[in-house]
Amino acid sequence: MLPYKNKHIMMNTALKTMLEHRSIRKFTPDDIDEKTLDLILKAACNGSTMGNMQLYSIIVTKNKEKMKEMAPFHFNQPMGTNAPVILTFIADFNRFNKYCEHRDAETDAYSNLQSYHWAVIDAIIAAQNACVAAESLGLGICWLGTITYNADKFIETFKLPKHTVPVACIAFGYPDEQPELTDKLPLEALVHYEIYNDYTQESIDWLYADKEAHENTKRLLTENNLPNLARIFTERRYKKPDNEHFAKVLEKVMKEQGFF
Amino acid sequence: MLPYKNKHIMMNTALKTMLEHRSIRKFTPDDIDEKTLDLILKAACNGSTMGNMQLYSIIVTKNKEKMKEMAPFHFNQPMGTNAPVILTFIADFNRFNKYCEHRDAETDAYSNLQSYHWAVIDAIIAAQNACVAAESLGLGICWLGTITYNADKFIETFKLPKHTVPVACIAFGYPDEQPELTDKLPLEALVHYEIYNDYTQESIDWLYADKEAHENTKRLLTENNLPNLARIFTERRYKKPDNEHFAKVLEKVMKEQGFF
Repeated sequence: MLPYKNKHIMMNTALKTMLEHRSIRKFTPDDIDEKTLDLILKAACNGSTMGNMQLYSIIVTKNKEKMKEMAPFHFNQPMGTNAPVILTFIADFNRFNKYCEHRDAETDAYSNLQSYHWAVIDAIIAAQNACVAAESLGLGICWLGTITYNADKFIETFKLPKHTVPVACIAFGYPDEQPELTDKLPLEALVHYEIYNDYTQESIDWLYADKEAHENTKRLLTENNLPNLARIFTERRYKKPDNEHFAKVLEKVMKEQGFF
Repeated sequence: MLPYKNKHIMMNTALKTMLEHRSIRKFTPDDIDEKTLDLILKAACNGSTMGNMQLYSIIVTKNKEKMKEMAPFHFNQPMGTNAPVILTFIADFNRFNKYCEHRDAETDAYSNLQSYHWAVIDAIIAAQNACVAAESLGLGICWLGTITYNADKFIETFKLPKHTVPVACIAFGYPDEQPELTDKLPLEALVHYEIYNDYTQESIDWLYADKEAHENTKRLLTENNLPNLARIFTERRYKKPDNEHFAKVLEKVMKEQGFF
Protein backbone atom coordinates (compact mmCIF):
# COMPACT_ATOMS: atom_id res chain seq x y z
CA MET A 1 0.00 0.00 0.00
CA LEU A 2 1.26 3.46 -0.78
CA PRO A 3 2.25 5.33 2.37
CA TYR A 4 -0.31 8.13 1.99
CA LYS A 5 -3.42 6.12 1.15
CA ASN A 6 -6.49 6.41 3.38
CA LYS A 7 -5.21 9.51 5.03
CA HIS A 8 -7.62 12.20 3.82
CA ILE A 9 -4.79 14.61 3.23
CA MET A 10 -3.88 17.00 0.49
CA MET A 11 -1.78 15.30 -2.17
CA ASN A 12 0.24 16.90 -4.95
CA THR A 13 2.86 15.92 -7.50
CA ALA A 14 5.73 16.94 -5.24
CA LEU A 15 4.58 14.79 -2.34
CA LYS A 16 3.52 11.93 -4.60
CA THR A 17 6.95 11.98 -6.27
CA MET A 18 8.79 11.81 -2.97
CA LEU A 19 6.48 9.26 -1.34
CA GLU A 20 6.71 6.95 -4.36
CA HIS A 21 10.48 7.25 -4.77
CA ARG A 22 12.48 4.11 -5.40
CA SER A 23 15.88 3.79 -7.04
CA ILE A 24 15.89 2.77 -10.69
CA ARG A 25 18.86 0.74 -11.91
CA LYS A 26 17.62 -0.26 -15.38
CA PHE A 27 16.92 2.43 -17.97
CA THR A 28 15.35 2.34 -21.44
CA PRO A 29 17.67 3.51 -24.24
CA ASP A 30 15.65 6.76 -24.55
CA ASP A 31 17.61 9.96 -24.30
CA ILE A 32 16.61 12.82 -22.00
CA ASP A 33 15.73 15.77 -24.23
CA GLU A 34 17.34 19.16 -23.73
CA LYS A 35 14.30 20.93 -22.31
CA THR A 36 13.77 18.22 -19.70
CA LEU A 37 17.42 18.27 -18.67
CA ASP A 38 17.33 22.06 -18.56
CA LEU A 39 14.37 21.96 -16.15
CA ILE A 40 16.12 19.43 -13.93
CA LEU A 41 19.22 21.63 -13.82
CA LYS A 42 17.17 24.77 -13.11
CA ALA A 43 15.40 23.06 -10.20
CA ALA A 44 18.78 21.87 -8.91
CA CYS A 45 20.22 25.38 -9.05
CA ASN A 46 17.31 27.09 -7.28
CA GLY A 47 17.61 25.36 -3.91
CA SER A 48 18.71 26.91 -0.63
CA THR A 49 22.43 27.64 -0.46
CA MET A 50 24.77 29.04 2.19
CA GLY A 51 24.52 32.84 2.06
CA ASN A 52 23.39 32.52 -1.57
CA MET A 53 26.99 31.65 -2.50
CA GLN A 54 25.91 28.60 -4.57
CA LEU A 55 28.87 26.49 -3.55
CA TYR A 56 28.42 23.69 -6.05
CA SER A 57 28.98 22.77 -9.66
CA ILE A 58 27.25 20.12 -11.73
CA ILE A 59 29.02 18.05 -14.35
CA VAL A 60 26.79 16.57 -17.05
CA THR A 61 28.05 13.27 -18.47
CA LYS A 62 26.39 12.08 -21.68
CA ASN A 63 29.43 10.80 -23.53
CA LYS A 64 29.45 6.99 -23.43
CA GLU A 65 33.24 6.85 -23.72
CA LYS A 66 33.53 9.05 -20.64
CA MET A 67 31.06 6.79 -18.81
CA LYS A 68 33.10 3.71 -19.72
CA GLU A 69 36.29 5.44 -18.57
CA MET A 70 34.67 6.10 -15.18
CA ALA A 71 32.95 2.71 -14.85
CA PRO A 72 35.72 1.04 -12.80
CA PHE A 73 35.70 3.94 -10.31
CA HIS A 74 31.98 3.25 -9.89
CA PHE A 75 32.90 -0.43 -9.34
CA ASN A 76 31.19 -1.20 -12.67
CA GLN A 77 27.67 -0.62 -11.36
CA PRO A 78 25.50 -0.93 -14.49
CA MET A 79 23.84 2.50 -13.96
CA GLY A 80 27.28 4.06 -14.47
CA THR A 81 27.17 3.19 -18.18
CA ASN A 82 23.52 2.40 -19.01
CA ALA A 83 21.98 5.73 -18.01
CA PRO A 84 21.62 8.34 -20.78
CA VAL A 85 22.71 11.10 -18.37
CA ILE A 86 24.82 11.13 -15.23
CA LEU A 87 25.05 14.26 -13.10
CA THR A 88 27.96 14.63 -10.72
CA PHE A 89 27.61 17.25 -8.01
CA ILE A 90 30.75 18.98 -6.84
CA ALA A 91 31.22 20.78 -3.53
CA ASP A 92 32.79 23.86 -5.12
CA PHE A 93 34.53 26.81 -3.45
CA ASN A 94 36.80 27.33 -6.48
CA ARG A 95 34.37 29.58 -8.34
CA PHE A 96 33.68 31.74 -5.29
CA ASN A 97 37.37 31.97 -4.40
CA LYS A 98 38.15 33.02 -7.98
CA TYR A 99 35.42 35.65 -7.70
CA CYS A 100 37.11 36.91 -4.52
CA GLU A 101 40.50 36.89 -6.25
CA HIS A 102 39.24 39.03 -9.14
CA ARG A 103 37.61 41.50 -6.73
CA ASP A 104 40.67 41.99 -4.51
CA ALA A 105 39.03 40.20 -1.61
CA GLU A 106 40.64 37.62 0.72
CA THR A 107 41.17 34.42 -1.29
CA ASP A 108 41.73 31.83 1.42
CA ALA A 109 38.92 32.58 3.85
CA TYR A 110 37.22 29.32 2.91
CA SER A 111 40.05 26.78 2.98
CA ASN A 112 38.77 24.97 6.04
CA LEU A 113 36.56 22.11 7.24
CA GLN A 114 33.62 24.38 8.15
CA SER A 115 33.46 25.93 4.67
CA TYR A 116 33.84 22.45 3.20
CA HIS A 117 30.62 21.45 4.97
CA TRP A 118 28.75 24.43 3.51
CA ALA A 119 29.79 23.37 0.01
CA VAL A 120 28.93 19.69 0.60
CA ILE A 121 25.50 20.65 1.92
CA ASP A 122 24.85 23.04 -0.99
CA ALA A 123 25.82 20.32 -3.46
CA ILE A 124 23.52 17.71 -1.88
CA ILE A 125 20.57 20.13 -1.76
CA ALA A 126 21.07 20.76 -5.48
CA ALA A 127 21.41 17.03 -6.15
CA GLN A 128 18.21 16.12 -4.31
CA ASN A 129 16.28 18.87 -6.10
CA ALA A 130 17.50 17.40 -9.38
CA CYS A 131 16.25 13.97 -8.31
CA VAL A 132 12.78 15.19 -7.31
CA ALA A 133 12.51 17.26 -10.50
CA ALA A 134 13.47 14.30 -12.67
CA GLU A 135 11.17 11.87 -10.89
CA SER A 136 8.27 14.33 -11.14
CA LEU A 137 8.76 14.18 -14.92
CA GLY A 138 8.64 10.38 -15.06
CA LEU A 139 12.36 9.71 -14.98
CA GLY A 140 14.08 7.28 -12.66
CA ILE A 141 17.21 8.01 -10.66
CA CYS A 142 19.90 6.14 -8.78
CA TRP A 143 22.64 7.56 -6.55
CA LEU A 144 26.13 6.17 -7.03
CA GLY A 145 27.74 6.35 -3.58
CA THR A 146 31.02 5.32 -5.17
CA ILE A 147 31.70 8.99 -5.95
CA THR A 148 33.08 9.62 -2.42
CA TYR A 149 34.98 6.30 -2.38
CA ASN A 150 37.01 7.18 -5.43
CA ALA A 151 36.91 10.97 -5.18
CA ASP A 152 40.61 11.11 -6.16
CA LYS A 153 39.94 9.27 -9.43
CA PHE A 154 36.97 11.48 -10.34
CA ILE A 155 39.01 14.61 -9.61
CA GLU A 156 41.48 13.44 -12.23
CA THR A 157 38.82 12.41 -14.76
CA PHE A 158 36.81 15.61 -14.49
CA LYS A 159 39.95 17.79 -14.19
CA LEU A 160 38.68 19.32 -10.95
CA PRO A 161 40.71 22.23 -9.58
CA LYS A 162 41.63 22.93 -5.94
CA HIS A 163 38.71 23.72 -3.59
CA THR A 164 36.37 21.27 -5.29
CA VAL A 165 35.37 17.75 -4.18
CA PRO A 166 32.82 15.50 -5.94
CA VAL A 167 30.19 14.41 -3.39
CA ALA A 168 27.16 13.14 -5.28
CA CYS A 169 26.66 11.25 -8.51
CA ILE A 170 23.28 10.32 -9.89
CA ALA A 171 22.21 8.30 -12.91
CA PHE A 172 19.09 9.59 -14.71
CA GLY A 173 16.95 7.89 -17.35
CA TYR A 174 13.54 6.48 -18.18
CA PRO A 175 12.74 3.45 -16.00
CA ASP A 176 12.97 0.00 -17.58
CA GLU A 177 11.88 -1.71 -14.36
CA GLN A 178 9.18 -1.20 -11.75
CA PRO A 179 10.67 -2.19 -8.42
CA GLU A 180 8.60 -2.29 -5.23
CA LEU A 181 8.91 0.59 -2.78
CA THR A 182 12.02 0.05 -0.65
CA ASP A 183 11.43 -1.27 2.87
CA LYS A 184 12.09 1.66 5.19
CA LEU A 185 12.25 1.92 8.95
CA PRO A 186 9.05 3.23 10.55
CA LEU A 187 8.93 6.97 11.18
CA GLU A 188 9.23 6.30 14.92
CA ALA A 189 12.75 4.99 14.32
CA LEU A 190 13.90 8.22 12.70
CA VAL A 191 12.00 11.05 14.40
CA HIS A 192 12.69 12.38 17.88
CA TYR A 193 10.79 15.05 19.79
CA GLU A 194 12.69 17.89 21.50
CA ILE A 195 15.66 15.69 22.46
CA TYR A 196 17.31 12.58 21.04
CA ASN A 197 15.70 9.46 22.36
CA ASP A 198 18.53 6.92 22.36
CA TYR A 199 17.94 3.31 21.35
CA THR A 200 17.79 0.32 23.66
CA GLN A 201 18.04 -3.35 22.69
CA GLU A 202 14.25 -3.49 23.02
CA SER A 203 13.60 -0.47 20.79
CA ILE A 204 16.11 -1.68 18.20
CA ASP A 205 14.33 -5.05 18.14
CA TRP A 206 10.91 -3.62 17.41
CA LEU A 207 12.04 -0.78 15.13
CA TYR A 208 13.90 -3.26 12.89
CA ALA A 209 11.26 -6.02 13.18
CA ASP A 210 9.41 -5.24 9.93
CA LYS A 211 12.63 -4.81 8.00
CA GLU A 212 13.98 -8.12 9.33
CA ALA A 213 10.73 -9.88 8.42
CA HIS A 214 10.76 -8.38 4.91
CA GLU A 215 11.11 -10.72 1.93
CA ASN A 216 14.11 -8.77 0.64
CA THR A 217 15.93 -9.40 3.90
CA LYS A 218 15.11 -13.11 3.89
CA ARG A 219 16.37 -13.40 0.33
CA LEU A 220 19.61 -11.60 1.25
CA LEU A 221 20.20 -13.89 4.25
CA THR A 222 19.87 -16.97 2.07
CA GLU A 223 22.07 -15.53 -0.69
CA ASN A 224 24.77 -14.52 1.78
CA ASN A 225 24.42 -17.46 4.17
CA LEU A 226 24.42 -15.12 7.15
CA PRO A 227 22.11 -15.06 10.18
CA ASN A 228 21.06 -11.39 10.09
CA LEU A 229 20.97 -8.17 8.11
CA ALA A 230 23.52 -6.32 10.26
CA ARG A 231 26.17 -8.88 9.37
CA ILE A 232 25.39 -8.56 5.67
CA PHE A 233 26.41 -4.93 6.00
CA THR A 234 29.49 -5.45 8.16
CA GLU A 235 30.73 -8.66 6.48
CA ARG A 236 29.68 -8.18 2.85
CA ARG A 237 28.53 -4.76 1.74
CA TYR A 238 30.49 -2.15 3.72
CA LYS A 239 33.36 -3.82 5.52
CA LYS A 240 35.53 -2.05 8.07
CA PRO A 241 38.87 -2.38 6.21
CA ASP A 242 37.30 -1.07 2.99
CA ASN A 243 35.60 1.82 4.77
CA GLU A 244 38.84 2.74 6.50
CA HIS A 245 40.78 2.56 3.25
CA PHE A 246 38.30 4.87 1.48
CA ALA A 247 38.22 7.17 4.51
CA LYS A 248 41.98 7.68 4.06
CA VAL A 249 41.50 8.40 0.35
CA LEU A 250 38.85 10.99 1.14
CA GLU A 251 40.91 12.62 3.89
CA LYS A 252 43.82 12.93 1.47
CA VAL A 253 41.50 14.44 -1.13
CA MET A 254 40.11 16.98 1.34
CA LYS A 255 43.66 18.00 2.26
CA GLU A 256 44.94 18.15 -1.31
CA GLN A 257 41.88 20.12 -2.43
CA GLY A 258 42.69 22.68 0.26
CA PHE A 259 39.83 22.19 2.70
CA PHE A 260 41.72 20.76 5.61
CA MET B 1 9.70 36.79 -14.43
CA LEU B 2 9.43 33.24 -13.19
CA PRO B 3 12.24 31.11 -14.59
CA TYR B 4 10.00 28.68 -16.48
CA LYS B 5 7.64 31.13 -18.21
CA ASN B 6 7.40 31.08 -22.02
CA LYS B 7 9.07 27.74 -22.25
CA HIS B 8 6.27 25.47 -23.46
CA ILE B 9 7.28 22.76 -21.07
CA MET B 10 5.47 20.43 -18.77
CA MET B 11 4.97 21.99 -15.39
CA ASN B 12 3.90 20.31 -12.15
CA THR B 13 3.72 21.12 -8.45
CA ALA B 14 7.12 19.60 -7.74
CA LEU B 15 8.89 21.72 -10.36
CA LYS B 16 6.85 24.83 -9.55
CA THR B 17 7.71 24.43 -5.85
CA MET B 18 11.42 24.18 -6.55
CA LEU B 19 11.55 26.90 -9.21
CA GLU B 20 9.67 29.34 -6.97
CA HIS B 21 11.66 28.59 -3.84
CA ARG B 22 12.81 31.49 -1.71
CA SER B 23 13.74 31.48 1.97
CA ILE B 24 11.05 32.71 4.37
CA ARG B 25 12.24 34.42 7.54
CA LYS B 26 8.93 35.75 8.87
CA PHE B 27 6.16 33.33 9.81
CA THR B 28 2.52 33.81 10.83
CA PRO B 29 1.67 32.52 14.33
CA ASP B 30 -0.22 29.59 12.77
CA ASP B 31 0.81 26.17 13.94
CA ILE B 32 1.59 23.31 11.54
CA ASP B 33 -1.04 20.63 12.12
CA GLU B 34 -0.07 17.06 12.84
CA LYS B 35 -1.13 15.60 9.48
CA THR B 36 0.89 18.19 7.57
CA LEU B 37 3.98 17.62 9.72
CA ASP B 38 3.54 13.88 9.36
CA LEU B 39 3.53 14.20 5.55
CA ILE B 40 6.67 16.35 5.63
CA LEU B 41 8.42 13.78 7.81
CA LYS B 42 7.27 10.89 5.60
CA ALA B 43 8.62 12.65 2.49
CA ALA B 44 11.89 13.31 4.33
CA CYS B 45 12.24 9.67 5.31
CA ASN B 46 11.57 8.24 1.86
CA GLY B 47 14.57 9.72 0.03
CA SER B 48 17.57 7.85 -1.29
CA THR B 49 19.96 6.66 1.40
CA MET B 50 23.28 4.81 1.43
CA GLY B 51 22.57 1.10 1.09
CA ASN B 52 19.09 1.76 2.56
CA MET B 53 20.76 2.23 5.97
CA GLN B 54 18.86 5.51 6.64
CA LEU B 55 21.77 7.17 8.38
CA TYR B 56 19.91 10.15 9.80
CA SER B 57 17.62 11.20 12.58
CA ILE B 58 15.26 14.15 12.73
CA ILE B 59 14.62 16.15 15.89
CA VAL B 60 11.34 18.04 15.98
CA THR B 61 11.44 21.24 18.05
CA LYS B 62 8.08 22.82 18.89
CA ASN B 63 8.72 23.81 22.49
CA LYS B 64 9.29 27.58 22.63
CA GLU B 65 11.46 27.28 25.78
CA LYS B 66 13.74 24.87 23.89
CA MET B 67 13.86 27.32 20.96
CA LYS B 68 14.84 30.16 23.28
CA GLU B 69 17.50 27.99 24.90
CA MET B 70 19.02 27.34 21.45
CA ALA B 71 18.60 30.89 20.12
CA PRO B 72 22.12 32.07 21.05
CA PHE B 73 23.66 29.04 19.26
CA HIS B 74 21.72 30.17 16.18
CA PHE B 75 23.17 33.67 16.75
CA ASN B 76 19.64 34.86 17.61
CA GLN B 77 18.37 34.62 14.05
CA PRO B 78 14.63 35.39 14.39
CA MET B 79 13.57 32.17 12.58
CA GLY B 80 15.15 30.24 15.45
CA THR B 81 12.34 31.30 17.78
CA ASN B 82 9.51 32.58 15.57
CA ALA B 83 8.90 29.44 13.55
CA PRO B 84 6.23 27.04 14.86
CA VAL B 85 8.42 24.05 13.99
CA ILE B 86 12.15 23.57 13.62
CA LEU B 87 13.55 20.32 12.26
CA THR B 88 17.16 19.44 12.96
CA PHE B 89 18.69 16.73 10.80
CA ILE B 90 21.36 14.56 12.37
CA ALA B 91 23.97 12.53 10.51
CA ASP B 92 23.35 9.38 12.55
CA PHE B 93 25.36 6.14 12.65
CA ASN B 94 24.41 5.54 16.29
CA ARG B 95 21.17 3.71 15.47
CA PHE B 96 22.80 1.47 12.88
CA ASN B 97 25.79 0.74 15.15
CA LYS B 98 23.39 -0.19 17.96
CA TYR B 99 21.57 -2.47 15.52
CA CYS B 100 24.91 -4.12 14.72
CA GLU B 101 25.71 -4.42 18.44
CA HIS B 102 22.45 -6.22 19.19
CA ARG B 103 22.98 -8.60 16.27
CA ASP B 104 26.54 -9.59 17.17
CA ALA B 105 27.96 -7.78 14.16
CA GLU B 106 31.09 -5.58 14.05
CA THR B 107 30.25 -2.35 15.94
CA ASP B 108 33.00 0.00 14.80
CA ALA B 109 33.02 -0.53 11.04
CA TYR B 110 31.62 2.96 10.50
CA SER B 111 33.78 5.12 12.79
CA ASN B 112 35.55 6.90 9.97
CA LEU B 113 35.45 9.91 7.66
CA GLN B 114 34.01 7.97 4.69
CA SER B 115 31.04 6.67 6.69
CA TYR B 116 30.57 10.16 8.13
CA HIS B 117 30.05 11.44 4.59
CA TRP B 118 27.38 8.81 3.91
CA ALA B 119 25.48 9.95 7.00
CA VAL B 120 25.84 13.66 6.18
CA ILE B 121 24.58 13.06 2.64
CA ASP B 122 21.65 10.93 3.86
CA ALA B 123 20.69 13.66 6.35
CA ILE B 124 20.79 16.42 3.73
CA ILE B 125 18.73 14.39 1.23
CA ALA B 126 16.09 13.93 3.96
CA ALA B 127 16.27 17.62 4.86
CA GLN B 128 15.78 18.80 1.29
CA ASN B 129 12.85 16.43 0.78
CA ALA B 130 11.27 17.93 3.91
CA CYS B 131 11.74 21.42 2.45
CA VAL B 132 10.18 20.59 -0.91
CA ALA B 133 7.29 18.74 0.79
CA ALA B 134 6.60 21.69 3.09
CA GLU B 135 6.82 24.28 0.32
CA SER B 136 4.50 22.23 -1.90
CA LEU B 137 1.92 22.52 0.90
CA GLY B 138 2.22 26.30 1.12
CA LEU B 139 4.69 26.52 3.97
CA GLY B 140 7.86 28.57 3.96
CA ILE B 141 11.26 27.34 5.05
CA CYS B 142 14.64 28.74 6.01
CA TRP B 143 17.89 26.87 6.63
CA LEU B 144 19.89 27.84 9.70
CA GLY B 145 23.53 27.28 8.73
CA THR B 146 24.51 27.97 12.33
CA ILE B 147 23.88 24.29 13.11
CA THR B 148 27.36 23.30 11.89
CA TYR B 149 29.00 26.35 13.53
CA ASN B 150 27.83 25.40 16.98
CA ALA B 151 27.48 21.64 16.51
CA ASP B 152 29.04 21.12 19.97
CA LYS B 153 26.33 23.20 21.67
CA PHE B 154 23.51 21.44 19.82
CA ILE B 155 24.95 18.04 20.73
CA GLU B 156 24.62 19.04 24.38
CA THR B 157 21.14 20.54 24.01
CA PHE B 158 19.70 17.59 22.09
CA LYS B 159 21.65 15.03 24.19
CA LEU B 160 23.14 13.48 21.06
CA PRO B 161 25.11 10.26 21.56
CA LYS B 162 28.40 9.25 19.92
CA HIS B 163 28.25 8.68 16.13
CA THR B 164 25.79 11.51 15.55
CA VAL B 165 26.45 15.06 14.28
CA PRO B 166 23.78 17.71 13.59
CA VAL B 167 24.21 18.95 10.02
CA ALA B 168 21.02 20.71 8.95
CA CYS B 169 18.47 22.82 10.74
CA ILE B 170 15.40 24.25 9.07
CA ALA B 171 12.65 26.56 10.31
CA PHE B 172 9.14 25.78 8.99
CA GLY B 173 5.98 27.89 9.13
CA TYR B 174 3.36 29.74 7.11
CA PRO B 175 4.92 32.74 5.29
CA ASP B 176 4.27 36.19 6.67
CA GLU B 177 6.27 37.85 3.90
CA GLN B 178 6.52 37.54 0.10
CA PRO B 179 10.14 38.11 -0.81
CA GLU B 180 11.30 38.29 -4.43
CA LEU B 181 13.03 35.26 -5.91
CA THR B 182 16.70 35.28 -4.86
CA ASP B 183 19.17 36.46 -7.49
CA LYS B 184 21.01 33.35 -8.64
CA LEU B 185 23.98 32.84 -10.91
CA PRO B 186 23.04 31.85 -14.46
CA LEU B 187 22.97 28.12 -15.18
CA GLU B 188 26.13 28.55 -17.30
CA ALA B 189 28.03 29.42 -14.13
CA LEU B 190 27.11 26.17 -12.41
CA VAL B 191 26.87 23.52 -15.11
CA HIS B 192 29.82 21.90 -16.88
CA TYR B 193 29.76 19.37 -19.70
CA GLU B 194 31.90 16.21 -19.50
CA ILE B 195 34.78 17.98 -17.71
CA TYR B 196 35.11 20.94 -15.35
CA ASN B 197 35.51 24.16 -17.27
CA ASP B 198 37.61 26.32 -14.93
CA TYR B 199 36.89 30.03 -14.55
CA THR B 200 38.96 32.88 -15.96
CA GLN B 201 38.81 36.54 -14.95
CA GLU B 202 36.68 37.13 -18.04
CA SER B 203 34.20 34.34 -17.30
CA ILE B 204 33.94 35.38 -13.64
CA ASP B 205 33.18 38.94 -14.76
CA TRP B 206 30.32 37.98 -17.02
CA LEU B 207 28.91 35.17 -14.87
CA TYR B 208 28.68 37.54 -11.87
CA ALA B 209 27.57 40.58 -13.92
CA ASP B 210 23.81 40.23 -13.31
CA LYS B 211 24.30 39.51 -9.63
CA GLU B 212 26.59 42.53 -9.26
CA ALA B 213 24.07 44.75 -11.06
CA HIS B 214 21.19 43.46 -8.89
CA GLU B 215 19.42 45.94 -6.61
CA ASN B 216 20.07 43.70 -3.58
CA THR B 217 23.79 43.90 -4.22
CA LYS B 218 23.75 47.67 -4.62
CA ARG B 219 21.84 48.03 -1.36
CA LEU B 220 24.34 45.77 0.42
CA LEU B 221 27.31 47.78 -0.89
CA THR B 222 25.82 51.02 0.43
CA GLU B 223 24.89 49.47 3.78
CA ASN B 224 28.35 48.00 4.22
CA ASN B 225 30.35 50.81 2.61
CA LEU B 226 32.33 48.30 0.57
CA PRO B 227 33.21 48.36 -3.14
CA ASN B 228 32.01 44.85 -4.10
CA LEU B 229 30.03 41.78 -3.10
CA ALA B 230 33.06 39.53 -2.62
CA ARG B 231 34.38 41.79 0.15
CA ILE B 232 30.99 41.79 1.88
CA PHE B 233 31.45 38.05 2.25
CA THR B 234 35.09 38.05 3.26
CA GLU B 235 34.99 41.18 5.48
CA ARG B 236 31.49 41.06 6.97
CA ARG B 237 29.49 37.87 6.58
CA TYR B 238 31.92 34.94 6.66
CA LYS B 239 35.31 36.12 7.82
CA LYS B 240 38.41 33.95 7.77
CA PRO B 241 39.10 33.96 11.55
CA ASP B 242 35.48 33.04 12.31
CA ASN B 243 35.43 30.29 9.70
CA GLU B 244 38.69 28.87 11.03
CA HIS B 245 37.42 28.99 14.59
CA PHE B 246 34.24 27.13 13.69
CA ALA B 247 36.22 24.68 11.56
CA LYS B 248 38.17 23.73 14.71
CA VAL B 249 34.93 23.30 16.66
CA LEU B 250 33.56 21.00 13.97
CA GLU B 251 36.77 18.98 13.70
CA LYS B 252 36.70 18.46 17.48
CA VAL B 253 33.04 17.40 17.25
CA MET B 254 33.75 14.91 14.45
CA LYS B 255 36.58 13.41 16.54
CA GLU B 256 34.61 13.31 19.80
CA GLN B 257 31.60 11.80 18.04
CA GLY B 258 33.84 9.02 16.80
CA PHE B 259 33.98 9.70 13.07
CA PHE B 260 37.59 10.69 12.75
